[in-house]
Amino acid sequence: MKVVIIGSGSWGTALANVLADNHVDVTIYGINEDQVTDINENNQNSFFFKDILLNSEIKATGNFSVVEDADIILIATPSGIVKKICLDLYPILKNPVYIINVAKGFDPDTNDRLQVTIKDNLKEKLKSCISLIGPSHAEEVVIGLLTSVNAVSDDLEAAKIIQKIFSNNYFRVYTNTDVVGAEIGVALKNVMALASGILHGQKQGDNARAALMTRGLAEITRFGVANGADPQTYLGLCGVGDLIVTCTSVHSRNYQAGIIIGQADSADYFLKNNKKTVEGIKACKSVHAKASEIGVEMPITNEIYSVLYEGKKPSEAIDHLMARSLKSEWI
Amino acid sequence: MKVVIIGSGSWGTALANVLADNHVDVTIYGINEDQVTDINENNQNSFFFKDILLNSEIKATGNFSVVEDADIILIATPSGIVKKICLDLYPILKNPVYIINVAKGFDPDTNDRLQVTIKDNLKEKLKSCISLIGPSHAEEVVIGLLTSVNAVSDDLEAAKIIQKIFSNNYFRVYTNTDVVGAEIGVALKNVMALASGILHGQKQGDNARAALMTRGLAEITRFGVANGADPQTYLGLCGVGDLIVTCTSVHSRNYQAGIIIGQADSADYFLKNNKKTVEGIKACKSVHAKASEIGVEMPITNEIYSVLYEGKKPSEAIDHLMARSLKSEWI
Repeated sequence: MKVVIIGSGSWGTALANVLADNHVDVTIYGINEDQVTDINENNQNSFFFKDILLNSEIKATGNFSVVEDADIILIATPSGIVKKICLDLYPILKNPVYIINVAKGFDPDTNDRLQVTIKDNLKEKLKSCISLIGPSHAEEVVIGLLTSVNAVSDDLEAAKIIQKIFSNNYFRVYTNTDVVGAEIGVALKNVMALASGILHGQKQGDNARAALMTRGLAEITRFGVANGADPQTYLGLCGVGDLIVTCTSVHSRNYQAGIIIGQADSADYFLKNNKKTVEGIKACKSVHAKASEIGVEMPITNEIYSVLYEGKKPSEAIDHLMARSLKSEWI
Repeated sequence: MKVVIIGSGSWGTALANVLADNHVDVTIYGINEDQVTDINENNQNSFFFKDILLNSEIKATGNFSVVEDADIILIATPSGIVKKICLDLYPILKNPVYIINVAKGFDPDTNDRLQVTIKDNLKEKLKSCISLIGPSHAEEVVIGLLTSVNAVSDDLEAAKIIQKIFSNNYFRVYTNTDVVGAEIGVALKNVMALASGILHGQKQGDNARAALMTRGLAEITRFGVANGADPQTYLGLCGVGDLIVTCTSVHSRNYQAGIIIGQADSADYFLKNNKKTVEGIKACKSVHAKASEIGVEMPITNEIYSVLYEGKKPSEAIDHLMARSLKSEWI
């Protein structure tokens, strides 16, 4: 079983390390020459993990033809370029492959879930698509801290193959077949993480954050169910699990972005100067469009959309959310 | 409308401050003379809130007869003495009153929920019982940070009265009529907070904590539903909301206790030296007994019970939880 990981970023590297720890043949394809060299010569990816020694069995290459004879290809890129990767893969693949996607977001062109994009663009070259997603900061996985994630696919047998090659004593993989629910959960929690960071930046505390996450989970569930998800998924690792880890951890880029926006009481400065991938910013736009289309009430997403795309002040957005009339918890 | 709060601790004081901010007539009854004097003379309760000036309309007294002509009595004591308070109140009350309970636990003698204990012991002196519970650290409420909680009662009109007198621009109260579900949720999350602290003490990270809280929420829901709760409650403030705030905040005594137990890899030292109320320790015993009785699977609660009452090492408990066989998320 030969696995190729596309993307030498932090998550791709951490997952390669898990596979190498399990003695699986794994190669990282990366476009950054320094990172490729660092992995091959020093067993490190110092740009992301300073002073961490990776498993020496990991190989890295800048040659895309490495994908040709892969059995499994894992796409570890931002959501926005998953489609491009598929278009690049399509002509070069000789046989159908398993594709693992680990990006958490939507296709920014179509607002589709990423498994839809992958299926639409790889067609007969795709054996099955599996999302490996859940509450998992790369910084912790790479040093062997306990982590649990889902292998999500409508092909349960494929999910079990992925579960088997990744699982070990620190990395636990559970199968899940609710692709719609899980993909929506992990993408939408990034919007809530922006909101959670904004609250923190506005000097609110743990009580407000817990209330936001509670309301956020209800909002994610509402949107998911309207799109055909199983509500139970939101009580699991791709629902509440990933929401918690993203909304409370300093490792989350979305949460960090929210803090800066909250402190400035404006998204302007951040949006003009940010160079990192902050998935929640694009996901918010996709979800806002979809929710309007299908008529789902999304008060938190709407306020974050107004902050990001309509110049609304975060302090006004919070006031607006708080000022809703007193009522029972579920009306 | 005259409100008496029994207990001059941090939560009783913070809630008195909310009521005084809303111009409700409120008196704190406390057994600690220094605290009573501090509140009356300095508008402070310095033992709990250093350098915080309370609303000057709050009165305090050491005379229990203050309860005689109260319309509403709020019990802000540890769970273990709620029954004693009711026994003290019963002979002295002239007319039936609304009782608000804010303790989060079970009656340690009977393993009953606290509203059951209050009803059983106040009988015809009770107009209605309302629990005011949710994700709410006193330290944040007393300085006016945004907080949302539930007023939970089978008497919806009574819950609405409590909602009305407490709500303002920083303290939001939502009504909820699932008493069984809400009381179980806020009590059981203290057991999960012990587990979360133990993970932290054992140097695990945010990924492990998120997985624990996810599995913990499933376990709480399973126990609640087996006792007649509405599962939706666990997606709300008394479920996931209170779980998040308790398992991730430095303000939580249960979480702090777990850290010490985790660091020592033993509960021994903590149990011998602790003098504070750590509700999760007693709640774990009550839930463990009840779960065995009704046959609900509680893997996390069982491990914490073994650590607290059977001398099991936390590191062994974690290994045991992780070693369960690979499977789908919901089997």
